Amino acid sequence: MTTKKQLHLGVFLLNAGQHTGGWRHPETQADRLLDISFYQDFARLSERGKFDTILILEQIAIGEQNERVAEERSIPTLDTLTLLSVMAAVTERIGLTATLSTTYNDPYHVAARFATLDHLSGGRAGWNMVTSQDPRIASQFSKDAHMDHTLRYQRANEFVEVAMKLWDSWEVDALVANREAGIYLDPAKVHDIDHSDTHFSFSGSSYIPRPVQGHPVLFQAGSSGSGLQFAARKAEVVFTAQDNLHDAQRYYANLKGMLEPYGRDAAKFHILPGLAPILGSTEREAKERQVYFNELVLPEIAVRNLSGTIDVDLSSYPLDGPFPYWEIDAEANNSKKSRLQLLKDLGQREKWTVRQMSQHVISAGGHHTFAGTPEQLADLMESWIDQAACDGFTIMPSHYLRGLEEFVEQVIPILQKRGRYRTEYTGHTLREHLGLTSPANRWSKVQASASL
Amino acid sequence: MTTKKQLHLGVFLLNAGQHTGGWRHPETQADRLLDISFYQDFARLSERGKFDTILILEQIAIGEQNERVAEERSIPTLDTLTLLSVMAAVTERIGLTATLSTTYNDPYHVAARFATLDHLSGGRAGWNMVTSQDPRIASQFSKDAHMDHTLRYQRANEFVEVAMKLWDSWEVDALVANREAGIYLDPAKVHDIDHSDTHFSFSGSSYIPRPVQGHPVLFQAGSSGSGLQFAARKAEVVFTAQDNLHDAQRYYANLKGMLEPYGRDAAKFHILPGLAPILGSTEREAKERQVYFNELVLPEIAVRNLSGTIDVDLSSYPLDGPFPYWEIDAEANNSKKSRLQLLKDLGQREKWTVRQMSQHVISAGGHHTFAGTPEQLADLMESWIDQAACDGFTIMPSHYLRGLEEFVEQVIPILQKRGRYRTEYTGHTLREHLGLTSPANRWSKVQASASL
Repeated sequence: MTTKKQLHLGVFLLNAGQHTGGWRHPETQADRLLDISFYQDFARLSERGKFDTILILEQIAIGEQNERVAEERSIPTLDTLTLLSVMAAVTERIGLTATLSTTYNDPYHVAARFATLDHLSGGRAGWNMVTSQDPRIASQFSKDAHMDHTLRYQRANEFVEVAMKLWDSWEVDALVANREAGIYLDPAKVHDIDHSDTHFSFSGSSYIPRPVQGHPVLFQAGSSGSGLQFAARKAEVVFTAQDNLHDAQRYYANLKGMLEPYGRDAAKFHILPGLAPILGSTEREAKERQVYFNELVLPEIAVRNLSGTIDVDLSSYPLDGPFPYWEIDAEANNSKKSRLQLLKDLGQREKWTVRQMSQHVISAGGHHTFAGTPEQLADLMESWIDQAACDGFTIMPSHYLRGLEEFVEQVIPILQKRGRYRTEYTGHTLREHLGLTSPANRWSKVQASASL
Repeated sequence: MTTKKQLHLGVFLLNAGQHTGGWRHPETQADRLLDISFYQDFARLSERGKFDTILILEQIAIGEQNERVAEERSIPTLDTLTLLSVMAAVTERIGLTATLSTTYNDPYHVAARFATLDHLSGGRAGWNMVTSQDPRIASQFSKDAHMDHTLRYQRANEFVEVAMKLWDSWEVDALVANREAGIYLDPAKVHDIDHSDTHFSFSGSSYIPRPVQGHPVLFQAGSSGSGLQFAARKAEVVFTAQDNLHDAQRYYANLKGMLEPYGRDAAKFHILPGLAPILGSTEREAKERQVYFNELVLPEIAVRNLSGTIDVDLSSYPLDGPFPYWEIDAEANNSKKSRLQLLKDLGQREKWTVRQMSQHVISAGGHHTFAGTPEQLADLMESWIDQAACDGFTIMPSHYLRGLEEFVEQVIPILQKRGRYRTEYTGHTLREHLGLTSPANRWSKVQASASL
């Protein structure tokens, strides 16, 4: 009997739910988004579902995730690491992963904040190392111009390099706390690091002992060429938007294949595409719920969003007239070429109206959307993992807390029964949940080889 | 019957206790400094004492608070705001004030982090707005040189200016969350701010709604000329080191007098000097405990610390020989002139040895130290507040948690019985505890005057 491949699952937190219309659903708790209890309920519920980790998206400009619909629907997010800290206080096992940009932060602060979270949570911190794409953000940080794509990723690589050096600057046993001798730390095991390169010129050491996990688990979420190179070099888990099985397989094979030149083990690198489910007791009920969600999005917002996605101004096209798929120029935009071709094909095939197309696109922002029964969803998840399309998923509930509760109560038990998912946490740290080993400390290595 | 002036009390958190020898005391919990439960116990105990606020000191370089003794005794601190977040999760009323430097941060992130804490804690956030003095820190942030004193305070003023604009960028009623209409926020009430000055050139708005308290309560902790000007312009509470009643009175009169030119009300501005108590059931027992604490400090560390404080290398003076007070040049160092003169006078008067002097100085780092009975301490606190030396104190327990517990159990009840301190919290926010009003929103004001 062969062991079935196990799923790894993250759960996504952004605003009141992943679906753009989600916050208007009568079941959501859009009025609790500034309350500590909302986040703590979310964390407890996620831990009940035995998720590997919570993943919080960052939004450091209003509507950053979708600037074309930035106005009326903009829902504030709070500082990601602060949210995880209050979640850490009421949970014991679940991983706590926050997005924090490498573009407008400093590695010293970021390394310290994640080290702190890792200590206080007992080794449950993860860092989703993004670059900031939204050009409006530059002016919020007294910068004249937004850094270009290549430079952003160059900076991101160096940023993470410095952070890793900082986490390594304290050896595991540097903290002595010997009251009799009056020695708190062993200065020989706290190393000053020197780093001097394009973006950072650093000397000093961390003021915080080495994190419990060695380094927090490193997540990455960009799909451009530079983004993938960055993931292959530095990330341990990748969050990605894959619309369909075929694209997901291609992405999976490509990215896993990129690891070898860096001497990395593909089995210790997880790809967890987003999955946005809407469940029903029958497929029909689920589809009806999906339509209901889609209709909660104001048409003008959905159309403005679609215009932005395909770079075609749709404002002069009738809402219930044919969707002008022929206007899409898939070749024009390198970073989303495949996505644009997909939408073009879809429009041609389905013969949808502008309204229908806009509702389809807005429901999950490029992630795989699913409407069906819990069994059908479990089937899909098994089929993706068995066909080398992913190592699990980042579940993006349509609306909180109900959409999450449905997944935890209806889907997790099926996956557990089928032997695809843990019934209890076996480890205590996020690394343990993900089967990832702790990185060796570079200084201990130096010492070890010197003593050979 | 006149009402007695009420004390405001903060409680100080740094490392394992304020006393340099505190962490070596058998009662301390120096081995729990990386555990969430330690900080949560500290917070619950402080709330039991009905303190206005916890005040956490920042240390973004190893031994930043005292670089001369940076090595063996260096005790790591964690990221201040993360600590407050996990404390917020287990308390209901107590204020949560964190030190965060204005020198190596960006106002956009800092404003967002405090806004987040203020929302999640229900209006309990305070910000101790320091500048970073330790020149070693520059190299940790890819800076060639440390900013000079005047420039640092110029930057601090502008930094806080930008943060205040950000907190004001959302009017109180900007968050609509109207599900029927599909309108989450009212774009007319979220204002883009423009700021262009020496240190920051900013345009944009906060991504987080206006904090519960309007602005978090602003604390300041520097005593130089620029520091005092900064306090008079921007702070609402001042934390200061005052060694004795006379100096405290002079400081109090001076700083309160500086408020008027800024149109500020001296009654809405609290000065809370540090107070480091060691208690005993008799005065003699307390003094013996103090000697015990002082002896916990390794002599070479105490002497190195004293050398740094007075800018005289004491390494060649015999430990039990006379303290060379005559070597102190009080005029040489502008920022600590009065402190140096004080130590010079003390050395001359007491005829202490190098060892004795070093133990005296290291016990509380310039703050008023007290060894006596709880009644004597209450007397001292009443006498300082009645003689216009302060509006309360920042209590700096010698060692955690025991030193804090002693104060809560032995001193607070006396102050309550004497009608000097609250027996229950009457408000929910830190501003309410301190009797400070919320600042008006600059945009609402604009509108209000326009509609007249």
